[in-house]
Amino acid sequence: MATGHTDPQRRDRILTATLDLIADEGVTGVSHRKIATRADVPLGSMTYHFTGIDDLLRQAFTRFADHIVAVFEQHLGPAAGPEQAREAVTDLIHTLSEGPRRDLVLAQELYTLAARHPEYRLLSQEWMHRSRHLLERHFDPDTARQLDALIEGLTLHRALDPAPHTRDLTREAVTRVSTP
Amino acid sequence: MATGHTDPQRRDRILTATLDLIADEGVTGVSHRKIATRADVPLGSMTYHFTGIDDLLRQAFTRFADHIVAVFEQHLGPAAGPEQAREAVTDLIHTLSEGPRRDLVLAQELYTLAARHPEYRLLSQEWMHRSRHLLERHFDPDTARQLDALIEGLTLHRALDPAPHTRDLTREAVTRVSTP
Repeated sequence: MATGHTDPQRRDRILTATLDLIADEGVTGVSHRKIATRADVPLGSMTYHFTGIDDLLRQAFTRFADHIVAVFEQHLGPAAGPEQAREAVTDLIHTLSEGPRRDLVLAQELYTLAARHPEYRLLSQEWMHRSRHLLERHFDPDTARQLDALIEGLTLHRALDPAPHTRDLTREAVTRVSTP
Repeated sequence: MATGHTDPQRRDRILTATLDLIADEGVTGVSHRKIATRADVPLGSMTYHFTGIDDLLRQAFTRFADHIVAVFEQHLGPAAGPEQAREAVTDLIHTLSEGPRRDLVLAQELYTLAARHPEYRLLSQEWMHRSRHLLERHFDPDTARQLDALIEGLTLHRALDPAPHTRDLTREAVTRVSTP
C-alpha cells in the first residue's frame, strides 16, 4: 500500500499543488481535499506531511520565498562593487516585474494573508530579512532597507502598469536611493 | 414596496458591504447573496444598481481608491515647496502604514485581483495615475513616479513588519528619491 513513507516526492508535489491552487483560486480557496486531488495523493497523506492548513500554507509560502530569494541571489551574487550592484538591482526589478504572473499573484496572496492575519507576518518578515541581507553585501543596512522597499514598489507598479516605466527610470531611482 | 428608487443610500450601503466582505473574506468570497444580506437590501436591488459582480467590484474598488487618494490629497495639498512636500510624503507613508488593517487588506486584494486578471489593471492604473498626479504638483513627473513606487514599498513593508522602520529612515528615502 502506498503511504507517505514510500514516496519522497509526495511532500514536494503537495507543496507545488498548494502554490498552484493559491495562484488560481487564492488562499481562501485552499482545502486538503482540493490539494490532494491536484497533487494526486491520498487525502491521508496531507495530514501525514502537514499538521494542518496553517502548516501547509507556511511551508508552501516558505518555498515560494526560497524561489524569489534565489532570484535576488542570482542577480546580486555576481556583482562586484556598488556600480555593478546598482545595475544588478535594476535587472532584478525588470526580471521580477516581467516574470510569470504566477509569481506576481503568489507574492500578493502572501501579503494579503499577512495583512489579514498578523500571525503570518513572520513569513513576510523573514522574506524581507533575507532580501535585505543579500542587499547588505553591497549597501549599508539603512540603504538596503530603503532599496528593498523601492524594489517592492517599482516591481509591483511595473507589473501592473499597462505602460510600464523604462529601465532608465528604474536605474535612476535605484541610483538615487543607493547614494547616501 | 421598497425598491432601489426609493432608497438613495442603498447603492452606498451595497458598496460599503462589498468592501467589508472583501476585507473579511477576499474578492473570491464575494457573491450577490452575501452582499445583499450584509447590506440588508433585497437581492433584486443588487442587479438594479450593478450589472454584475464585475461592475460591483469595479465600483467598490473605485470608491476605495477615492478614499486613499483623499488621504494623499490631505497630506500633499497644503504643502508649499519641495521641503514641505517631502515632509508631507513622509507623514503620508506613516499614516498609511499605521492606518486601519482594512485599508491594508483592501489594497492588497485590489493588487491581487489586478495581478490575476489583467482586465482589472485599469483600476490599479487609474489609481496610480491619480496619486502620481498629486505628487506632480510638487515634483517632476519622473520623480513623482519613483516616489509613488517608494511610497508603495515603504508603506507595505512598514505595515507588515513587526519591527517597522523609523520615521528618520522614511524621510531619508523620500529625500534621496526626490533629489535629482
